[in-house]
Amino acid sequence: LDYQHVQVPFEITLWIMLASLAKIGFHLYNKLPSVVPESCLLIFVGLIMGGIIYGLNDRSPPVMDSDIFFLYLLPPIVLDAGYFMPSRPFFENIGTILLYAVVGTIWNVFGIGFSLYGICQVKAFRLQDVSLLHNLLFGSLIAAVDPVAVLAVFEEIHVNEKLHILVFGESLLNDAVTVVLYKLFRSFCEMPTIKSVDVFAGVGKFFVVGLGGVLVGLSFGFTAAFTTRFTKDIRVIEPLFVFLYSYLSYLTAEMFHLSGIVAIISCAMGMKRYVEANISLKSHTTVKYFMKMWSSVSDTLIFIFLGVSTIGENHEWNWPYICFTVIFCLIWRALGVLVLTFFVNRFHVNTITSKDQFIIAYGGLRGAICFSLVFLLPDFHRKKLFIAATTVVILFTVFVQGMTIRPLVDLLAVKRKRESAPTVGEQIHIRFLDHLLAGIEDISGHWGQYYWKDKLEYFNSKYLQKILLREYDQPKSSIVLLYEKLERKHAIELAQAGQLGHSPAQPSFLCSGFLCSSSDRTVLADQKLEDAPNPDALDNMQEILARHLYRIRRTGPAYNRHTLPGDSEPSERAKEILILRHTNR
Amino acid sequence: LDYQHVQVPFEITLWIMLASLAKIGFHLYNKLPSVVPESCLLIFVGLIMGGIIYGLNDRSPPVMDSDIFFLYLLPPIVLDAGYFMPSRPFFENIGTILLYAVVGTIWNVFGIGFSLYGICQVKAFRLQDVSLLHNLLFGSLIAAVDPVAVLAVFEEIHVNEKLHILVFGESLLNDAVTVVLYKLFRSFCEMPTIKSVDVFAGVGKFFVVGLGGVLVGLSFGFTAAFTTRFTKDIRVIEPLFVFLYSYLSYLTAEMFHLSGIVAIISCAMGMKRYVEANISLKSHTTVKYFMKMWSSVSDTLIFIFLGVSTIGENHEWNWPYICFTVIFCLIWRALGVLVLTFFVNRFHVNTITSKDQFIIAYGGLRGAICFSLVFLLPDFHRKKLFIAATTVVILFTVFVQGMTIRPLVDLLAVKRKRESAPTVGEQIHIRFLDHLLAGIEDISGHWGQYYWKDKLEYFNSKYLQKILLREYDQPKSSIVLLYEKLERKHAIELAQAGQLGHSPAQPSFLCSGFLCSSSDRTVLADQKLEDAPNPDALDNMQEILARHLYRIRRTGPAYNRHTLPGDSEPSERAKEILILRHTNR
Repeated sequence: LDYQHVQVPFEITLWIMLASLAKIGFHLYNKLPSVVPESCLLIFVGLIMGGIIYGLNDRSPPVMDSDIFFLYLLPPIVLDAGYFMPSRPFFENIGTILLYAVVGTIWNVFGIGFSLYGICQVKAFRLQDVSLLHNLLFGSLIAAVDPVAVLAVFEEIHVNEKLHILVFGESLLNDAVTVVLYKLFRSFCEMPTIKSVDVFAGVGKFFVVGLGGVLVGLSFGFTAAFTTRFTKDIRVIEPLFVFLYSYLSYLTAEMFHLSGIVAIISCAMGMKRYVEANISLKSHTTVKYFMKMWSSVSDTLIFIFLGVSTIGENHEWNWPYICFTVIFCLIWRALGVLVLTFFVNRFHVNTITSKDQFIIAYGGLRGAICFSLVFLLPDFHRKKLFIAATTVVILFTVFVQGMTIRPLVDLLAVKRKRESAPTVGEQIHIRFLDHLLAGIEDISGHWGQYYWKDKLEYFNSKYLQKILLREYDQPKSSIVLLYEKLERKHAIELAQAGQLGHSPAQPSFLCSGFLCSSSDRTVLADQKLEDAPNPDALDNMQEILARHLYRIRRTGPAYNRHTLPGDSEPSERAKEILILRHTNR
Repeated sequence: LDYQHVQVPFEITLWIMLASLAKIGFHLYNKLPSVVPESCLLIFVGLIMGGIIYGLNDRSPPVMDSDIFFLYLLPPIVLDAGYFMPSRPFFENIGTILLYAVVGTIWNVFGIGFSLYGICQVKAFRLQDVSLLHNLLFGSLIAAVDPVAVLAVFEEIHVNEKLHILVFGESLLNDAVTVVLYKLFRSFCEMPTIKSVDVFAGVGKFFVVGLGGVLVGLSFGFTAAFTTRFTKDIRVIEPLFVFLYSYLSYLTAEMFHLSGIVAIISCAMGMKRYVEANISLKSHTTVKYFMKMWSSVSDTLIFIFLGVSTIGENHEWNWPYICFTVIFCLIWRALGVLVLTFFVNRFHVNTITSKDQFIIAYGGLRGAICFSLVFLLPDFHRKKLFIAATTVVILFTVFVQGMTIRPLVDLLAVKRKRESAPTVGEQIHIRFLDHLLAGIEDISGHWGQYYWKDKLEYFNSKYLQKILLREYDQPKSSIVLLYEKLERKHAIELAQAGQLGHSPAQPSFLCSGFLCSSSDRTVLADQKLEDAPNPDALDNMQEILARHLYRIRRTGPAYNRHTLPGDSEPSERAKEILILRHTNR
C-alpha cells in the first residue's frame, strides 16, 4: 500500500465526491431543500463531519485554507455568476448597486468598528485591550455581504429581478472596498504611527483597485474573444480558453493586489457575447455546463468546509462581544439601506419599496469570504475572539436569516420574479423605447444611460465585432437568432415525439403569399416565447415566423455600392423560394 | 506585486495556455500538420523553449516531474482512450492483443536487456560496470510501446481498424507487464541476493497486477453507473461522476501497486453504456467534449515537456550504448512481431498480412512513460547514460518512425480505414451472424467468443441493466436508438436550413398502410447510415423507418401474465395512430 504517493489527488477527489453525493442525497428527498436552504444542510453535514474528525483524532479538524479558498474555490463561483449575470438589469441599476457596494460597505465597516470599540470600553466585558484599529479591521472583514451565501439563498426564493440584482450585485462589487479597507487596516495595525498621507493614499486605492480590476478583466476578456476567432479547426479546445483567460484575469488581478472578483466578472461579461458567437454550439453547451458544474461543486465544498472548520478549539467565547457583533451587523446594515435608499429614491422614478428595502437589509448574508479573511489575520492575542465572532455571525446569517427569508418573502408578498418569459411584443416595445430614449437624450443634450448605451452599441458593431468575431457579416437581428433557437428546440422535440415531417397544418392560421393579415400579427405578439403553455400556439407562431423569415432576410442591405439589390446569395434565395412554393403547393 | 502567492496556479495556467496556443498555431497552417505529426512539432516547440530557458538561466531546465506525469497528465489520456475505445474490434482481437502485450513485451525486455549486456562486455566501449540486472531494468522500461505516442501518430494515418486496435491495444495493456517487470528488477537491484522464490512471486504478480486492475476498474465503473441513476434532479453534476470515479479507480489501483492504466480503461469501458443511458444528452456532450479537451491538453503538455526536458546536462553520451539500444529496440520488436504473428495466424482465419506486420513492428513508438520511468530510477552512477539512451530512443521513434510511417503506409498500400459507415444492411447481417454463431457454438458445445458474448449480453439485460439503469423498461433495440439519433440530427439540420415542417414528400417511395414493398427494403439496406452522400436517400430511409417504427414498438412483449396485449400505454398508441392517419390523409 502506497498511500503517500497518491494522497493529494486522492483526498481532493474524495472531498469532491463527498460533496457531490451529499447534493444527490438532499435532492432524493424533495421536501428537505424546499424548507431548509441547501447551504444550511451542507454546513450541517460539515459540522457532523468535523465532529467525527474531532472525536476520532481528539484535535481540531483542519480549517479551510484561505489560499485554497481564494485561489481555487472562489473563482469558479464568481466566474459562473459573471457569465450568467443578466446584463440589462445589472447595468440599469449600476448606480444603485455601486452606492450600496461602496458607500454602504464603508458605512458598515466604520459603524460596526466604532460601535464595537464602544463596547470594548465597558469594563465588565474585559475587552479593553482590543484597540480601535483592531475593531475597524474586524469591521472591514465582517461588513461585506458574501456573494456565495447570497447566491445560494436568493437563487431559491425567486424574488423579482431588480431586488435580486441589487443584493447580488452589491455582494460582488463590494469586494474592491473590502480588499482596500482590509489591507489598509491590516497595514495600519503593523505600522508604529499613521500619517495622514497614508489615509489619503487609502482613499485613492479604491479607484485603483476597482477600476484596475475592471481593466484587467476586460483586457483578458477581449483577448479570449480574439483567440476564439482562430479555433475553427480545433473545436475541442474552445471551452478551455474561456476558463483559462478568466482564471488568468483573476490571478493577475490578485497578483497586483487588485480586486480579483471584479476582474473575473468584467472578463466574463466582456467576452460572453463574442465567445458565444465564435465557438460551436457544442462547445458552448460544454462551457455552460462545466461552469455550472464547477461552481456548484465549489459552492458545496465551501459550505461543507465552513461546517468542518467551525468545530475545534480555535475560538475564544467572549459572549458579549459576539452578541453585540451580531446585533451591530443587523442594525448598521438596516440603517445603511434605509439612508442610502432614501437618496436613491429621490433620483429615480422606479423607487425601491419599503418591503424591498427590508429584504435587501435582511438578505445581507455573511459567508466564507469573511471566514477566510479572519484566518488570514496576523497573529495577535485576540485573533481567536474574532474567529469566534465571525463564525457566529456567519452561522446566524446563514441559518436564521437564510431559513426565515423565504417565509418572510411569502408573508410580505414581495414582488416575485416573473415566471413567464417576455412576449415578442414586449421585446419589440422595449427595443423601440430604448432607441426612442437614446434619440431623446441625444436631442436634449442629456448624456444619460440610453445615450451611452447607444454609443457603446455603435462602437461595438463598428469596431469590436469586426476584430473579435470570426464570421462578421452583418449583425443578425436578435429576433432572427431567437427564431433559429426556437426552431432548433422545436425540431428536437418533434424528433423525440417521432413527428418529424408531419407538422400539423392548421389552415386557419396559414396566410398565403407574403403578406400576413393583422390578426396574425396579434397572435404573434401575444404568444409567450418560451415555455408556452399551449404547444399549438407555439406551432402557429413558428409557422408565421417561418413565413416571415424570408422577408426579414430580404430586408438586409437594401442598397450597396458594389452589389445590385437581390444579387447576394442567389442560390440561398432560390432555395428559399423553392421551399415556400413547395409549401404553398 | 505578489507573485509568490499565485505562482502555482498561475504557472500551470500559463503552461496550459501555451500548449493550447501552440495547437492553434499549427492548425492555422494546414500544410504543416499533414506532413509532420503534431507530436513532433510539439517536441520541437519544447526543445526551443528548453533551449531558451537553458540559455537564460545557464542551468538545465526543469525536467518533467514523474509524479505530475503519472498522477495528472496520463489519466485523462487513458480515460479518453478507454471511453472511446471501439469495443467490438477490441474484444474480437483481445487474444492477439494480449499475446503482443504480455509475451511480446517480455520478449522485448529480455531480448534488449541480454543483448545490451553483451554489448557491455566489449572492452572498447568502457561499459563493463553495467550489470546484467541494470541492463534488464533498462530493458523493462525501454521495451514498452507508449500509448500516448501511438495514439498521436495512428490517429493521423487512418490505417484499418484491426491494425489500429492491435498496436493501440498492445500499448495500453502492456502497462501491467511493464509495472511488474520494472518494479521486480528495481527491487532485485537493491537486494543483496535473489532467491528463486522472488522470481516465482514476480510471475504470480503479473496476474495480480493485471486482473486486480480490471477488478478495481470494473467495480468503480459499476458504482459510477449506479450513482448516475440518482442524478435526475441535478443534471448539472452528472459529468462530474464520470471523471471522479474513473480517476479514483486509477488512483486506487496505483495505491495498491496495480496497473492504473488497466483500471481506468476497465472503468471507462464498464460504465460507458450505462452512464450514457442514464445521463442527459447535454451532460453526455459535456462528458465527451471535456474528455477530448482534457486528453488533448495533457497530450500537448506531455510532448512539450518531453522537448523541454531533453535539453540540459542530465545525459551521459556513450554513443555505442545509445546506438545499440536503438538498433536492438528495432530488431527485437520486429522479431517479436514476426514470431508471435506466425502463431496467431495459425489459429485465425482472418490472418495478419506481412504489410500489417511491418506496420505493427514499425509503429512501436516509445514515449513519455519510458521517460518518466527512467527518471524514477534509484540513483546509481550510470543513470545519466540510461536517461540519454531513453531520450534518443524516444526522439528517434517519434521523429524518424513517426514522420516516415505515413509515407510508408501510402507506399505499401496498407488497407485503410473504411471512410463510410456501415450500411443498415451490413449491420443487420453482422447482428444476425453473431446470433447464428452463438447458436452454433452453443449446439456444438464449443465455448468460443460468440458463446460468451451471448451469455454476457444475457447477464447484462437480466441483471446489470435492472440495477444500473434508471429507466429500465425493456432494452431498446439498437436500430431504434440509431433511428432516434438520426431523427434528431436530421431535425437540427432541417431547422438550420429553415425547412422544418416542409419535408419533401416523394410519392414514389411512400407506401401506404403498414406493409412495405420489398423494393423499399432494398433501398433501406443500401443507404449509408452516416454522412450519406445523398440527403434525399437519407430522407427516404427516414420516411420508411418512421412508418415502421410503429410496428417495431408493437412487437414488444407479446404476452404477459399481468397485462392484456395492447393494453400498455394506450395514450401513446392512440397518439401514434393519430399521427399515422394524419400523414396518410
